Amino acid sequence: MEAELLNQFRFFDPNEKVREIANELYSNVKDLPIISPHGHVDPKLLAINESFPDPAELIIIPDHYIFRMLYSQGISLESLGVPTVDGTTVETDHRKIWKIFAENFYLFAGTPTGAWLKHELVEVFGINEKLNAKNADKIYDLISAKLKTKEFLPRTLFDKFKIEVLSTTDGASDSLEYHKIIKESGWEGRVIPCFRPDAAVNITGSSWKNEIDKLSQASKIDVVTYKSFISAIENRREYFKSVGAVSTDQGIVSPYTHQLSDKEAEDIFQHALKGKATEEEATLFTANMLMEMARMSVEDGLVMQVHPGSMRNHNERIFKRFGLDKGADIPLQTEYTRNLHELLNKYGNDNRLTLIVFTLDESNYARELAPLAGHYPAMKLGPSWWFHDSIEGMIRFRQNVTETAGVYNTVGFNDDTRAFLSIPARHDLSRRVDSNFLAGLAAKHIIDLAEAKTLSEALAYGLVKKAYKL
Amino acid sequence: MEAELLNQFRFFDPNEKVREIANELYSNVKDLPIISPHGHVDPKLLAINESFPDPAELIIIPDHYIFRMLYSQGISLESLGVPTVDGTTVETDHRKIWKIFAENFYLFAGTPTGAWLKHELVEVFGINEKLNAKNADKIYDLISAKLKTKEFLPRTLFDKFKIEVLSTTDGASDSLEYHKIIKESGWEGRVIPCFRPDAAVNITGSSWKNEIDKLSQASKIDVVTYKSFISAIENRREYFKSVGAVSTDQGIVSPYTHQLSDKEAEDIFQHALKGKATEEEATLFTANMLMEMARMSVEDGLVMQVHPGSMRNHNERIFKRFGLDKGADIPLQTEYTRNLHELLNKYGNDNRLTLIVFTLDESNYARELAPLAGHYPAMKLGPSWWFHDSIEGMIRFRQNVTETAGVYNTVGFNDDTRAFLSIPARHDLSRRVDSNFLAGLAAKHIIDLAEAKTLSEALAYGLVKKAYKL
Amino acid sequence: MEAELLNQFRFFDPNEKVREIANELYSNVKDLPIISPHGHVDPKLLAINESFPDPAELIIIPDHYIFRMLYSQGISLESLGVPTVDGTTVETDHRKIWKIFAENFYLFAGTPTGAWLKHELVEVFGINEKLNAKNADKIYDLISAKLKTKEFLPRTLFDKFKIEVLSTTDGASDSLEYHKIIKESGWEGRVIPCFRPDAAVNITGSSWKNEIDKLSQASKIDVVTYKSFISAIENRREYFKSVGAVSTDQGIVSPYTHQLSDKEAEDIFQHALKGKATEEEATLFTANMLMEMARMSVEDGLVMQVHPGSMRNHNERIFKRFGLDKGADIPLQTEYTRNLHELLNKYGNDNRLTLIVFTLDESNYARELAPLAGHYPAMKLGPSWWFHDSIEGMIRFRQNVTETAGVYNTVGFNDDTRAFLSIPARHDLSRRVDSNFLAGLAAKHIIDLAEAKTLSEALAYGLVKKAYKL
Repeated sequence: MEAELLNQFRFFDPNEKVREIANELYSNVKDLPIISPHGHVDPKLLAINESFPDPAELIIIPDHYIFRMLYSQGISLESLGVPTVDGTTVETDHRKIWKIFAENFYLFAGTPTGAWLKHELVEVFGINEKLNAKNADKIYDLISAKLKTKEFLPRTLFDKFKIEVLSTTDGASDSLEYHKIIKESGWEGRVIPCFRPDAAVNITGSSWKNEIDKLSQASKIDVVTYKSFISAIENRREYFKSVGAVSTDQGIVSPYTHQLSDKEAEDIFQHALKGKATEEEATLFTANMLMEMARMSVEDGLVMQVHPGSMRNHNERIFKRFGLDKGADIPLQTEYTRNLHELLNKYGNDNRLTLIVFTLDESNYARELAPLAGHYPAMKLGPSWWFHDSIEGMIRFRQNVTETAGVYNTVGFNDDTRAFLSIPARHDLSRRVDSNFLAGLAAKHIIDLAEAKTLSEALAYGLVKKAYKL
Repeated sequence: MEAELLNQFRFFDPNEKVREIANELYSNVKDLPIISPHGHVDPKLLAINESFPDPAELIIIPDHYIFRMLYSQGISLESLGVPTVDGTTVETDHRKIWKIFAENFYLFAGTPTGAWLKHELVEVFGINEKLNAKNADKIYDLISAKLKTKEFLPRTLFDKFKIEVLSTTDGASDSLEYHKIIKESGWEGRVIPCFRPDAAVNITGSSWKNEIDKLSQASKIDVVTYKSFISAIENRREYFKSVGAVSTDQGIVSPYTHQLSDKEAEDIFQHALKGKATEEEATLFTANMLMEMARMSVEDGLVMQVHPGSMRNHNERIFKRFGLDKGADIPLQTEYTRNLHELLNKYGNDNRLTLIVFTLDESNYARELAPLAGHYPAMKLGPSWWFHDSIEGMIRFRQNVTETAGVYNTVGFNDDTRAFLSIPARHDLSRRVDSNFLAGLAAKHIIDLAEAKTLSEALAYGLVKKAYKL
Repeated sequence: MEAELLNQFRFFDPNEKVREIANELYSNVKDLPIISPHGHVDPKLLAINESFPDPAELIIIPDHYIFRMLYSQGISLESLGVPTVDGTTVETDHRKIWKIFAENFYLFAGTPTGAWLKHELVEVFGINEKLNAKNADKIYDLISAKLKTKEFLPRTLFDKFKIEVLSTTDGASDSLEYHKIIKESGWEGRVIPCFRPDAAVNITGSSWKNEIDKLSQASKIDVVTYKSFISAIENRREYFKSVGAVSTDQGIVSPYTHQLSDKEAEDIFQHALKGKATEEEATLFTANMLMEMARMSVEDGLVMQVHPGSMRNHNERIFKRFGLDKGADIPLQTEYTRNLHELLNKYGNDNRLTLIVFTLDESNYARELAPLAGHYPAMKLGPSWWFHDSIEGMIRFRQNVTETAGVYNTVGFNDDTRAFLSIPARHDLSRRVDSNFLAGLAAKHIIDLAEAKTLSEALAYGLVKKAYKL
């Protein structure tokens, strides 16, 4: 007899008292609508609303969580069909790619990717079997067949998943055409953009000049000075708001914040336009733009998110051959107390600002982030992120943050995913882990059952809705 | 029916075997006398022995653990009655302040502050109700009434709490008049000072010159050279000892230690007297004073404590308006292995020195602090501190420290509190969490029951008494 | 009645469901052969195969895990018989030394050293009593008597312990004479060397020049240039391989990697030969040698290990009097993402390289090491090391690493020990803790029982055999 793939009590503590409370809390929140306030789903998907392609194209080829693990075990990205930058041919037989994945699915034992995929198989596709070499073909066929049905069109799934809001992530010069198509389509799904100006802010990035040109066109402001650059950014924020955005985001190496004088900023901007900006100038310019983005958020009300601490494209060979987001972004030690000092001193006492801070360096949870969020009214803590968006990662987050910052200085869950079909799996995992964490507190009589229930609802729905002003 | 506010098994593991052992260990230590070897209670309280004021003045207004959490949720310090530096009026209706607190008490769910306050309500005031908006007035009246009775006079509570020793924290030039009043009053409570010369050591602090003047007066030594400064410090240590002190303390940004030559120290001291000392000189001077304080401890036997790693007054606006200790001190990454190298090499092998080291950077527990304390005879580890003085914080401390340093290189618990009425709550929580930790080891057969009992008594009473030579 | 010293369910979770699964998994792996791919046992022991000396000489005097703890509590190393560098007399009455240890054995409660010693007493010597002052003499006599029997000769124990392979650690110029004696003795025990060229790489070490001379003699290559140095290293690796080596190792302060040009390397090498190399040059030379060792591993197939992050001989007084490895090596904060960047970019995509990375800085487990090992095909993670080779340390390793790197990017357990008799205890503890970890995942339905069983076998035997090519 095959083991049940999704046990109803999964992720709960084996202690019966805790499990019982966890299950009670979870049962109460599991069917709440999903709010996805930060992620990377392509809005085109929901704009054109066409059938998903085959299983490999859907699940493996675009998902760096999956192919990086296979790559770490010596399986080439070419054999997994990951497209190359220069168009060199890679594996095109998607059934073959699926089989490699199935043969190596055991590698994901104990990982969140493994847990999410099991959930997808059972809950989305109704397949209650663990993927392996033997059933690879059968499952490929089953998924393929379902994907062709109307029930599996993106908008149908969006509604089935009970998604109340889905935020994408979009560049400063993005036209947001797909968001507009969705809005004007008559379909009631709420898909909103998030303003992420990284390419325009990073003055030593290889695509910066190109991005500035696009920014000029998009904003109809001729970006030739720092001042016009700022105007263009403000202009685009306004546009994003008009299309539904409630937030901005910045991916940065360090959360260093520092206000430059107009003169200093202008000088650096002119160097950058001449292609002569140094790395030090880029660091200062980014630090200044964090200050500016905070100022704009105070003015226009967009929630400000920062995602620091990733060394992008650590593997240069993979980057040159396959491009960005190929599983080779590696976290760095990160400092917040000194780096956020200037921003928090200028804007942290202002109730009009909501600054949501994330980290890849968990040693900051209890040491720097919880004390900062437990003091400054403007600052809130984003959930455990990326590599830490996992069962143990979530437990570490709650255990390290709650005692100093409480629950109400955190903002619930976000899935941060590109993989549309994994959204319910990720929110379900989060609701289970949070219910279990609160059940542990209740079983230890740190909180009572009524408190646990209130907090569990807040973590699953209330906090995120409030924090992102949805 | 209202939930019981203080469950008898609170903070114990829900597993029955562990809970049973934990309860057995806890029952054996719960009534042991309290030794409070490091804290911030005002000795005046016990010297004049007058009734406490109202509930807001007692519990909210002076306690940054409480008002920082309310502030983080957008409640102004003015509305909580926190006094301003310049005397600008703040809320004076203490019942109104209490109501704000009661309405927002749910914010403390899962925090140690919440746990301590529940304990205070039940065990000190006999109120077995969770504070909320509805019962705020009633509980305010109940507490107010009790505070006016003889049973709630500070010395009566001191005895009722079974406090064997209470150490305060006092500046180098402090007259210790209240300690002397207590000593000479005939009352038998033991309230002792602790010598903390931070204001005299920090040569770039705004009050340094003033403190040097006070130090001259207090020591009757004209502090005009580094040499006379050292003599004055030695003189004051002697005076503190004569009034009962057993320890010193230093609050420092970094635990960097470095011996300056007399010439170097003198040069820096003269710069400082002229108001020309640089930040680098201040760092060197502090590093040198850690060396000197260790030397003096070897000579006079006072236990040396160091509390590094806090960036004080991170929020300048709050500091300017409300002053020190307003919940805006934020931890910094801290290094011990290299920083303590010089001090430990000079004094760490000397059995006459007891150096108790604390940290706000928990990543050092297993990495640097346990290996250092597990080698150097002079060094011991202070308990989990401040933000980490909490259930999870204590568990992390024990889990990360015990395997390398054992239990006997730690020094039991200290409450570090300004809030006199929270002392029993804090020690009770610590005794529960340590009993539960040891019960876990026993249930996993890492130690046996007899060992667990011995260690539990050591953690609750024996170790602190020995380490602080009480 | 005395408590049972070794409970059959020790180290398992007290929850019955978890304990039952843990026991099932453990029962399945507990008798698997031991592979010890990295450690510090003296090969002479197995070459000459003579009786072990007395209990103090066997268990206390050579083991810094044990005497550092006693030293931290004020017991002098002299009184424990630890030999001095200059031959000054120390305690020679080994029964007296044993008694000091027995009297203080309670210090080891809750430490891995305590757990290992209990295992040794019961499983190796058949003594089911906790060591204490009262039974010290009796146990000394019991152990002494057993040590004189044939059953306790090293090779007999090697076979009894079911050791399949034992790797020692040896300097670049080591003759490996004892390995050869073992090989040629007809005894079938597999004892292999590991190439660790630290003394030859560290150009500012006090013994470097001497080591270079020995390297010249051993390699029969006149090491007078960087080029001849590299040739000599290559020559010795080849020799080590011929005697059975499968791996190399490097102990370094920082894992910084950087390729020097031949000219740069030659210049530094010539400075070093003149005794004029700076610390900065030493850092660069070590960084370059990590690159070169990786290149050589790609070429000759030896597995590359790196052990960074220890500040050796922190206590200079102890170092001068007693020499190396006296319990005063203290961990440092360590960075991997940037430091390994150059090496991983050059060799990390090469399936011919196996690079096994260890850490003493656990904050890197989830932040840097798991993401790196979860991407680069060449990189694997060594088990929790030294201070973290403990119950809680192993749990932290698995909890922080598994979700990102999976189990298959780790390499099982190694004991890293000098204490031959502790080998079974250490592997047993590891098998118990890993079984319990996997049982926890199974009880929470993160993995199923079949997966748990497969992973448990991999962790106990399969992974180490594969990673070290044994």
